[in-house]
Amino acid sequence: MSTTSDDIHEPTMSTDTNADADDESASKCGASTSDTDTESSGSKCGAPSSETSDDSSSDDDSNEQEVGATIEDFDAEPGQLIAVGLGPGHPEGMTKRAKDALLEADHIVGYTTYIELIPDEITEQADDIYDTPMCGEVSRTEESIDRTLAGNDVAIVGSGDPNVYALAGLALEILESKGATASMVDFEVVPGVPAAQSCAARLGAPLVNDTVSVSLSDHLVPMPEIESRLHSVASENFTITIYNPWSRKRRDNFEKCCEILLTHREPDTPVGIVHGAGREDEQVMITELGELEELGESEIIDMTTTIVVGTEDTYVWDDRMVTPRGYETKYDY
Amino acid sequence: MSTTSDDIHEPTMSTDTNADADDESASKCGASTSDTDTESSGSKCGAPSSETSDDSSSDDDSNEQEVGATIEDFDAEPGQLIAVGLGPGHPEGMTKRAKDALLEADHIVGYTTYIELIPDEITEQADDIYDTPMCGEVSRTEESIDRTLAGNDVAIVGSGDPNVYALAGLALEILESKGATASMVDFEVVPGVPAAQSCAARLGAPLVNDTVSVSLSDHLVPMPEIESRLHSVASENFTITIYNPWSRKRRDNFEKCCEILLTHREPDTPVGIVHGAGREDEQVMITELGELEELGESEIIDMTTTIVVGTEDTYVWDDRMVTPRGYETKYDY
Repeated sequence: MSTTSDDIHEPTMSTDTNADADDESASKCGASTSDTDTESSGSKCGAPSSETSDDSSSDDDSNEQEVGATIEDFDAEPGQLIAVGLGPGHPEGMTKRAKDALLEADHIVGYTTYIELIPDEITEQADDIYDTPMCGEVSRTEESIDRTLAGNDVAIVGSGDPNVYALAGLALEILESKGATASMVDFEVVPGVPAAQSCAARLGAPLVNDTVSVSLSDHLVPMPEIESRLHSVASENFTITIYNPWSRKRRDNFEKCCEILLTHREPDTPVGIVHGAGREDEQVMITELGELEELGESEIIDMTTTIVVGTEDTYVWDDRMVTPRGYETKYDY
Repeated sequence: MSTTSDDIHEPTMSTDTNADADDESASKCGASTSDTDTESSGSKCGAPSSETSDDSSSDDDSNEQEVGATIEDFDAEPGQLIAVGLGPGHPEGMTKRAKDALLEADHIVGYTTYIELIPDEITEQADDIYDTPMCGEVSRTEESIDRTLAGNDVAIVGSGDPNVYALAGLALEILESKGATASMVDFEVVPGVPAAQSCAARLGAPLVNDTVSVSLSDHLVPMPEIESRLHSVASENFTITIYNPWSRKRRDNFEKCCEILLTHREPDTPVGIVHGAGREDEQVMITELGELEELGESEIIDMTTTIVVGTEDTYVWDDRMVTPRGYETKYDY
């Protein structure tokens, strides 16, 4: 039995709009792609001119991926750096704290698709918006740090939550590599609603018990490690949220994942699929584990999709996916 | 080495304020506690009078925990039922959608501590607020459904996200037991920022890779099952967020958890502890796994605390906990 809880619409956007899926940006460009933002780092943020010339930096010459300016290159009193989670991708899904943080920032930095999710009333307040297309998350994060060290209050944004496959960690790693500290820029993370939560809400109540998140992107984590994690959690009664499930280059990962899940769970285990939660191209489907692999080739599953795999207790009722918390063992209702 | 990233303040509140920890409400009262809210179900919601008398219902006589009114007892056109996640517990952590849903509701239903987190400007707009202290989540959820079936638009609220150890599933289960459907009440879940995200934000960037959530409450899940889950995820490189870590009645669960984690991870594995994230009694500490068990007896760890256990790659830098996503293997910075 396969239920569809919403009509499936033709996707209207083909860009990467997956909440929390920043690593995909990298995976589509590959580590070997030259980081075209590196040279602008400094030039837009007011760093000393010795760092802003295109070719004078020895770092730039030796490796385009290396960090340019360090803390030594900035004379200004640093501003504040805030990593802001926008939530599912519509303005109503943003917290008030996230909105306030964006309104207070001098500069807002992010992936173009995420910047476009921010209401104009907010972006119009900023002195500058720095957005780059896919493939630039390392240079974009460095840019946000350089601008902060140059004295600006900067918000770096992403959809979902900054802690879910996203940029909070990268910001701290790059700060350290520049000889700066988190305290120096009063680093703050403003949490947002992660894709797992946005998608679960559209599906009903699939996640009310112990749960795990696994990304199928092997750009930054080797596939054998991902496979081992899937085996370990599929054999226990966790719900499993799968991020970055499918791309043309990762068909095999998705197939392998389905195969592993089926070695531990029944083919009729409920599975929820949400594409572009809360956005124009949203699609929601509730199906069964045995049907999942063949859906990999359909348009509902791509890198903007989040998949929730139920437990042995999860059931589908009235087009909702329900994982009981266990109250029925204690109460009579 | 043990670092404390914030001063530890004397807690000013002793009530259960843990985001997403509704099951604790039940655990402190026990299944045998009589559900004193049951009789008020119907009487406050405008259900037909045959259901509102204190003793005339055979259900009430036979078992105080049983559901009272069913769909047959209501003549009205049902209203809408929305499960709203308030996020971490301060008004700034709420999404705009959550605020709007509360403003549109005729009735707002929730645990007293959560209702108190809602700004007056919102609660003053409602026709009625129904709040009960701890121990009443089943009857409270039933009350919200009865009020909806009686024709009111009802918001049932909790902190964190309705899908994280919370009431979204219970609402669907009780709807079904009453012979109603989710579609009939246009059931909607408004997601919120879960405690794992609020706490991770205070700690830095501990959760940017694959992650799991485990509750140590054995009120609704048997302890051997919880132990088995801890073993399976601790042996893989997941970050682990622990909900409901400690209560006087569950000292053993906490000790057992620490013991299991130490069989798989080094004693110097970073651990973040956040008590009452974003609230007046917030306390944040970064310590090591080997120190965790003895902290169980200190005031920073109780049922309002969330604990984040790092992976073998997690490190502490400048009082922040960082789990690298893996960019450093691809980029030079």
